[in-house]
Amino acid sequence: MDSKFIVIEGLEGAGKTTAREAIVATLQAHGIEDIVFTREPGGTPLAEQLRILVKQGIEGEQVTDKAELLMLYAARVQLVETVIKPALARGAWVVGDRHDLSSQAYQGGGRGVDAELMRTLRDTVLGDFRPDLTLYLDVTPETGLQRARARGVLDRIEQESLRFFERTRDRYLALAAEDATIRTIDATQPLEQVTTALQSTLSAWLAEQRA
Amino acid sequence: MDSKFIVIEGLEGAGKTTAREAIVATLQAHGIEDIVFTREPGGTPLAEQLRILVKQGIEGEQVTDKAELLMLYAARVQLVETVIKPALARGAWVVGDRHDLSSQAYQGGGRGVDAELMRTLRDTVLGDFRPDLTLYLDVTPETGLQRARARGVLDRIEQESLRFFERTRDRYLALAAEDATIRTIDATQPLEQVTTALQSTLSAWLAEQRA
Repeated sequence: MDSKFIVIEGLEGAGKTTAREAIVATLQAHGIEDIVFTREPGGTPLAEQLRILVKQGIEGEQVTDKAELLMLYAARVQLVETVIKPALARGAWVVGDRHDLSSQAYQGGGRGVDAELMRTLRDTVLGDFRPDLTLYLDVTPETGLQRARARGVLDRIEQESLRFFERTRDRYLALAAEDATIRTIDATQPLEQVTTALQSTLSAWLAEQRA
Repeated sequence: MDSKFIVIEGLEGAGKTTAREAIVATLQAHGIEDIVFTREPGGTPLAEQLRILVKQGIEGEQVTDKAELLMLYAARVQLVETVIKPALARGAWVVGDRHDLSSQAYQGGGRGVDAELMRTLRDTVLGDFRPDLTLYLDVTPETGLQRARARGVLDRIEQESLRFFERTRDRYLALAAEDATIRTIDATQPLEQVTTALQSTLSAWLAEQRA
């Protein structure tokens, strides 16, 4: 089977880190050993610098929605061109903690950035590069934020209003409904059930790819 | 007269800093006292952080052309929305050391970034916001780089090849030829003549605006 790019998506506190472990275990059970992990924003030294600017902002300065979005795309294209594409080209599988769908949901849905700008950025910056599979962990903002808060201090984006996360989730669900490469997992279930659902979804998808 | 946004453009070593002083003196002679200066990339704390990333890069990492361009636009939109537009709205004049034309020339011309991406970014990120007047200081790359080198250590972009700067200058000249808001000044002349040319061009433009 050709190498694939699999992305984990969801709100803060959806359980992406646990999901990653379940995904790796499933891939390994299918004999896939060469796996590269990425996270967004970040994943290269430059992109990690941009992650800090996006997540912490600058004391006393309001980061505009467009500047935030452009920094995210700068980080993303750097990661895609220098890490993800070379890894796929040498036959490694790539498992990403977030990718473009996060921008579509958070900046497009949550912040309400102009749909044409969103589409144009994706198409002109990334071309037709897309994940082969996205596993979207769906939680309510209440559940997600409760879990995120339990982990510690919230960053600039995690401090947004509940209404912001509701718009973000709505966009995730709408985009998942119209894209067959996005599979939605109910992540409000107890952890073991989420893991089971993830593994069976991924195994079924792998079987489809082999067929 | 309504407040205006005047931009100084040109290759490294074209004499933009000296030009700024000549422009301010001319504006003051016309009774314009409230003047805000900007530089790009930069001009806000966030944009200055992006300037450092663009100009210094990251040790051991090749910054992709698209990431560079997106960081420049992130810095630009932050500056336009939080500094330039508010200044113009309260009646101040804005004098900018570089603006969008630099990206058109350096990234579009010098680096050869896809023309559609260039156009789309400008139009979707900046809308129809444009400088009222751009004073383009035209020098040969040889002359400009000689002057830039005399100032000290060259940054990541200043270290590009002569051919890169030739493509950049060609794009500057081509864009200036088709845009009446860009006035080209021969900046290979001795400094006093450049200053005289700048001041007479600006004075003539101000007279046109009043007419």
